Amino acid sequence: MIIDPSAIPHSKLHAWLQSAVIPRPIAFASTVDNQGNINLSPFSFFNVFGSNPPTLVFSPSRRGRDNSTKHTYQNVKEVPEVVINMVRYAMVEQVSLSSCEYPKGVNEFIKSGLTAIPSTKVKPPRVAESPVSFECRVRGVKELGDQGGAGNLVICEVLLMHVKDEVLDDQGRIDPLKMDLVARMGGDLYLRMQKEGIFVVPKPNEKLGIGFDALPKAVRESTVLTGNELGRLANVSALPDTTTIKEFQSQPSVQSVLQQGTQARHRLAQYYLRQGKTEEAWKVLLD
Amino acid sequence: MIIDPSAIPHSKLHAWLQSAVIPRPIAFASTVDNQGNINLSPFSFFNVFGSNPPTLVFSPSRRGRDNSTKHTYQNVKEVPEVVINMVRYAMVEQVSLSSCEYPKGVNEFIKSGLTAIPSTKVKPPRVAESPVSFECRVRGVKELGDQGGAGNLVICEVLLMHVKDEVLDDQGRIDPLKMDLVARMGGDLYLRMQKEGIFVVPKPNEKLGIGFDALPKAVRESTVLTGNELGRLANVSALPDTTTIKEFQSQPSVQSVLQQGTQARHRLAQYYLRQGKTEEAWKVLLD
Repeated sequence: MIIDPSAIPHSKLHAWLQSAVIPRPIAFASTVDNQGNINLSPFSFFNVFGSNPPTLVFSPSRRGRDNSTKHTYQNVKEVPEVVINMVRYAMVEQVSLSSCEYPKGVNEFIKSGLTAIPSTKVKPPRVAESPVSFECRVRGVKELGDQGGAGNLVICEVLLMHVKDEVLDDQGRIDPLKMDLVARMGGDLYLRMQKEGIFVVPKPNEKLGIGFDALPKAVRESTVLTGNELGRLANVSALPDTTTIKEFQSQPSVQSVLQQGTQARHRLAQYYLRQGKTEEAWKVLLD
Repeated sequence: MIIDPSAIPHSKLHAWLQSAVIPRPIAFASTVDNQGNINLSPFSFFNVFGSNPPTLVFSPSRRGRDNSTKHTYQNVKEVPEVVINMVRYAMVEQVSLSSCEYPKGVNEFIKSGLTAIPSTKVKPPRVAESPVSFECRVRGVKELGDQGGAGNLVICEVLLMHVKDEVLDDQGRIDPLKMDLVARMGGDLYLRMQKEGIFVVPKPNEKLGIGFDALPKAVRESTVLTGNELGRLANVSALPDTTTIKEFQSQPSVQSVLQQGTQARHRLAQYYLRQGKTEEAWKVLLD
């Protein structure tokens, strides 16, 4: 299926983009106007974009409905400061409530029942219930267009980061399950991280992986091994030498499998791969 | 715990930011240099930022190690086009493999064993295995700094969007579970969406929620109702009228609960809230 952005209404396009680029982390942004009125609102067009300077970017977009701008956008143009608070499951309904379009001057901390704590380096307060908050200076706002649905990149430099002790593991690092952050998907859908969904892919070697083009043809065209398993095999920087292979394959249990043919051989390699034993898998696969 | 970015090495700061801003969607970016050499590499400093024009932004950052730039960054400066492919679980090890730092000129489609399909509107090919791909023109690159770890915002306008039919539901919309996308967390961790982790928060009314400040004191200070449940209650635009409440509370089963005191009353309201019956919850809570 092909979608040509120029051929459909941008409200439909908006829905396609929101359901395709997922999951999106949420910036819960606290700002003030030049009268000191506080605003608090969530944005899922958001991410970290660099560490030096430490930079977060979010977009309070122009409304598709009437091309009006959001108070958050107006506020950062008046007072270039923001606190970006991360959103955990226990507060998600209150965050959603704060996204009501209350009139200018209404403090969404009060409406949402969340707790404002004074910041150290910027005027907007932070959200006490958030596991992590970033006090930021706004370095610039890049408008991407002037019509309804246009994004406004608010480029934020992190001046101070707050992390609740309770979300740290015993080595003092952030434990994602303890944070229990939520993310946005398309429509009304949210995502909460499940332990079962978290997995590790070891970082590629500093040495280069040999690549798919170095896989033996029978391995690359295996009907047993999956793309992920081939990827793991191709990510080694060197293959075991002939002596090592011969020694490994001289074991009677391995020999009996090899005698059963290619499929059995690949299944044994798969067995090792699923235990994270890539080296052993290679010793099975090579001649 | 407070982290002052100016007081720690930026490699540590990088780790903090990466573990705090999660989950991050992945842009698997295909680019070409002005010789036509193809590059393919994943980036998790990425999101959608507007629908009019349809805009995706990702950052191939300067390496913290040696302040070198990535081929993807060099390529979009030479040929301002990119295909951003979304990454599903079945291909994640191959995507990880493609992030090896192969020398310039090496085609990561070949190294990772993924399939290049010619694009319609741009020179870089797209990834056949991806459930969604965006052919994009690069509208600009905004460098956030010139030191190691500095982000480079690559601002991409979507010219054409490809969606595999197999990820659509019976109403022709994207089904997130059928896409089975993966996202990045801190360190080597990835996230796969689990059905159990997906939930709905109804969009706030077009009418404004009454807000926490309109909750009766006994409700706001409930020791039974959670913040999320109070948020749901505060999100209604109007409360039921006295007649409706009296009628509801005249039921013997409700009466007997009310006679047991505030905690019992709040537990009954909670029971209704957990069934999505906010109106009934209010009829229990009000006098």
